[in-house]
Amino acid sequence: MKEAIKIGLLGSGTVGSGVVRVLRENMEEITARVGTRLVLAKVLVRDVKKPRPYLEGVELTDRVEDILEDDEISIVVEVMGGIKPAKDYMLRALAAGKNVVTANKDVVAQYGHELFDMAEAHDADFRFEASVGGGIPIIMPLKQCLTANRITEIMGIVNGTTNYMLTKMSECGASYDDVLKEAQEKGYAEANPSADVDGLDAARKAAILSSIAFNTRISLDDVSVEGITKITPDDIAYAKNLGYVVKLLAIGKETDEGINVRVHPVFLPEEHPLASVNGVFNAIFVRGNAVGEAMFYGPGAGSLPTASAVVADIIDVARDIVNHSFGRVNCTCYRKKVLCPIEKTRSSYYVRLLVEDKPGVLGAIATAFGNADVSLQSVIQTQRDKKEHAEIVAITHCVPHANILTALDVLNALPVVSEVRNLIRVENDRG
Amino acid sequence: MKEAIKIGLLGSGTVGSGVVRVLRENMEEITARVGTRLVLAKVLVRDVKKPRPYLEGVELTDRVEDILEDDEISIVVEVMGGIKPAKDYMLRALAAGKNVVTANKDVVAQYGHELFDMAEAHDADFRFEASVGGGIPIIMPLKQCLTANRITEIMGIVNGTTNYMLTKMSECGASYDDVLKEAQEKGYAEANPSADVDGLDAARKAAILSSIAFNTRISLDDVSVEGITKITPDDIAYAKNLGYVVKLLAIGKETDEGINVRVHPVFLPEEHPLASVNGVFNAIFVRGNAVGEAMFYGPGAGSLPTASAVVADIIDVARDIVNHSFGRVNCTCYRKKVLCPIEKTRSSYYVRLLVEDKPGVLGAIATAFGNADVSLQSVIQTQRDKKEHAEIVAITHCVPHANILTALDVLNALPVVSEVRNLIRVENDRG
Repeated sequence: MKEAIKIGLLGSGTVGSGVVRVLRENMEEITARVGTRLVLAKVLVRDVKKPRPYLEGVELTDRVEDILEDDEISIVVEVMGGIKPAKDYMLRALAAGKNVVTANKDVVAQYGHELFDMAEAHDADFRFEASVGGGIPIIMPLKQCLTANRITEIMGIVNGTTNYMLTKMSECGASYDDVLKEAQEKGYAEANPSADVDGLDAARKAAILSSIAFNTRISLDDVSVEGITKITPDDIAYAKNLGYVVKLLAIGKETDEGINVRVHPVFLPEEHPLASVNGVFNAIFVRGNAVGEAMFYGPGAGSLPTASAVVADIIDVARDIVNHSFGRVNCTCYRKKVLCPIEKTRSSYYVRLLVEDKPGVLGAIATAFGNADVSLQSVIQTQRDKKEHAEIVAITHCVPHANILTALDVLNALPVVSEVRNLIRVENDRG
Repeated sequence: MKEAIKIGLLGSGTVGSGVVRVLRENMEEITARVGTRLVLAKVLVRDVKKPRPYLEGVELTDRVEDILEDDEISIVVEVMGGIKPAKDYMLRALAAGKNVVTANKDVVAQYGHELFDMAEAHDADFRFEASVGGGIPIIMPLKQCLTANRITEIMGIVNGTTNYMLTKMSECGASYDDVLKEAQEKGYAEANPSADVDGLDAARKAAILSSIAFNTRISLDDVSVEGITKITPDDIAYAKNLGYVVKLLAIGKETDEGINVRVHPVFLPEEHPLASVNGVFNAIFVRGNAVGEAMFYGPGAGSLPTASAVVADIIDVARDIVNHSFGRVNCTCYRKKVLCPIEKTRSSYYVRLLVEDKPGVLGAIATAFGNADVSLQSVIQTQRDKKEHAEIVAITHCVPHANILTALDVLNALPVVSEVRNLIRVENDRG
C-alpha cells in the first residue's frame, strides 16, 4: 500500500456533502480500486463553528490558504460553484502544482482555457466530469472512449429543471406557469428560474460538450440561446399529434460552414433515443463517424449523483499520482475555431400562425413561404380561437435559418396574419 | 512529436477491416489527440495473396511470429474471434511485453484471469472495450467513470440479434420462427442461431460486465442461461396488455446472499429506460449507490462501431506508452467470489397456464400458488383456445425462485392444469 493521497475540499454544500458521504461510505472499495488510501484532509467552510456531524474528524478551516499552501494536499476539489472566488482558488491550486477536480460549469464554460493552460504549465491534472450531466459519465467517454471518432453532432438534455417542466406539460397539458410553480415547490426550480428556463445553464454545458466533441474552444459567448418560456400547451399538443415531443436541447453540430452550438426547444421524433428521457433525468446523444449513434443517460443533478462524478475524477487523478502520469489526457482543443453563424444553420421548422379565417389565406401563406425559399413538408389548418380566426401549423423542409427569418418577416407583414405564435426547430435528420 | 507507435493486427475480417478504416480515416484527429503517430505495421491474414485493396501499403503475413517477435510492435490487436488460436496469440504477445487490445468476448469471459495475470506479470496493458456492447463505451465507464460507486445491479440488452427479433415480434405480432427467418435473411442471425437465441452470447457478456461491476471474477460457468426460443406472440401480447415489454437481459445483481448472474427473457415495465431500446441496438443499465441509475446506449455490433471501441483502446494504450503508465487501471477483481444460487434469487413472475374451463379452477390454482408461498399480484383468465380450455395468466409478487419452482410442480400435478405454457421473470423493483 502506497502513501495516502490527501484531498482538500473547497465547499460543503449539496455537492460537497455528497462527496464526503461517497468517500466515507465507499472508502473500502475505493482504496481497493486505487491501491492507495484517499484521505479527506481539510474542508473549506464559511463558518468553522457550525456543527457538521458528517464532517466529524475532518479539519475545518475558513482560510483557503490552509488548503492551497498545504504541501501534503495533492488534490483540491472545488464544489463551491460560481465564478468568484472559485476560479481564483482553482488557478492558485494549479499554480501550486496541485491537481484540481471541479463540478463548476460556470468556470469551465467561460474560463476553461485559463485553467487548462495553468494545469499544463504546472504538470497537473484538471478534471470536470461533474460539470455536465451530473452523475452521467460524459466527459471521459467523449475524451477517451469515443476518441477514435470524428464527432459530427452532440445533442443533450442537460437541464433537469426544464426537462421536468416539459415532461409535465406533455403528460398533463398543464401551462408553463403551472409547471414552473410546481417545479419550484418541489425544489427543482429556483425562485428566480431564469438560468434554467432561459437556457443559460444548458448553454454552459453546450459550450463544454462542444469544446470536447469538436476539439476547439467553444466559449459561452459562442452559443446561441433560446429558452422554453414561449412553449405553450398548444405547441406540445401539436407536437404530439405530429409524432414529436418537445425537448430543450443543447446542440453542437459540425457543418460544412463550421461548428454551430446552440440551445433551444426542439420538436424531436418520438422514436429518437432522447425523446423518452423524462423528468429530471439528463441524457447526451453523440454521433460519430465510427460509432454511429451513442447515448449516455442518468441523473443530471443531485448531491450523490454529482458526487459520483466528482469522486470518479478524484480517483482518476489518484491513479495519475500513483503512476506519475499527470496530464495523461490533456486539453484536446487543438483545432482552430471556425464557427457557423446561426443564419447559415439548417433545420426543419414548426411555424404556428394565427390567421384570418377566410378563403385564400392558406394560399397567401404558402406563397409567402415559397417566396422566401422555404418549402413545406406539411400544413395543418385548425380553428382554435374565435370564429373569425384559424391557426395554421406548418412543418417546413430543411432550410437555412436565414430563409425562415425572411419568411417570418413576410408573414408578419401579411394583413391576413394576425400573429406568428411560435417558431420551433424540428430535428428529423436522424441518419 | 514522439516516435510512432507500431501496431500489429491479428485478423482482417469484419472488425479488422473496420479497425483499418477508422485508423486511416481518422488518423489526423487520432494523432492530434495522442500526440504521437500510430502506425499499422503488420496484419496477420490467412492468405497473403488475396487482394485486399484497403490494406494497401501494409505488410501482410500469415506467420503470427512476424508480429509477436517484432520488437518494434508495441500493441497487438486481436480481432480474429474464437478461443483458438486467439487466446494463445494474446498470451504470447503479453509474455513478450506487448500490450494487447481485443474484441474477443469468448476469451475474456472464459480466460480473462489468465490474460490479466500475464499482463500484470509483464507490466503490459490488456484492454477489451469492444467485447461487450460493440461501440458502446461500457468497460471504461464501469472501471473508471463509475468507480466511486458500489454497484448493486447491472442489466443489459447485449445481444442485437435477439433484441431485433423481440422488437419485430412486438411490433407486428409475428411468430418466433418468422422473425428468426427474417433476421437470418437480413444477416442479423447466423444460419445456426443457437449462440444468440439460446443466450450464450449474452451470457459471455454478462460474465464480463459482472466481473467488473462486482470486482470479482465471474466466469461463463457462473451464469444461468435461458434463451428466447420459448417466447410466443401470446406472451408478448399479454406483456403489452399489462404494461410491459419482453427483453432478453444479461443481469448481474448483488444480493444479501451473494452475486447472481443470469441471462433470460424479462417482462420489463414500459417506462424502464431499457424498454425503448429497440432493433439491433444495445444498452447497459447500471445501478450504483452514488449515481443511482445510469444507462449507456448504442450499436452493439458492426464493423465500424466495434472498431470505434477497439481503436479507443488502442489510443488509451498509446497514452500509457507515451506516459509509461502501463497497468494504470489494473484488473479490478479484488473480491472473493460469493455466488447466490439461482434458487435463492428473488423476482416477480409471469406464469401462463392452459387450464380446463370449469368452475373452481381459478380457486384451485390460487390455492396451489398460496401453498408454495407465492402470493399473486394479478390474475387474468381468458378463453383463447378451444371451448373447454381457458388461459390463466398470473403475475406474482416478488418471491424466491425456489418457491416458484415448487408452485410449478404443484400446478403441473393438478388435474385441471393442462399445461404450464410459460414462466418469465418480471422486473418491477426499480427504485
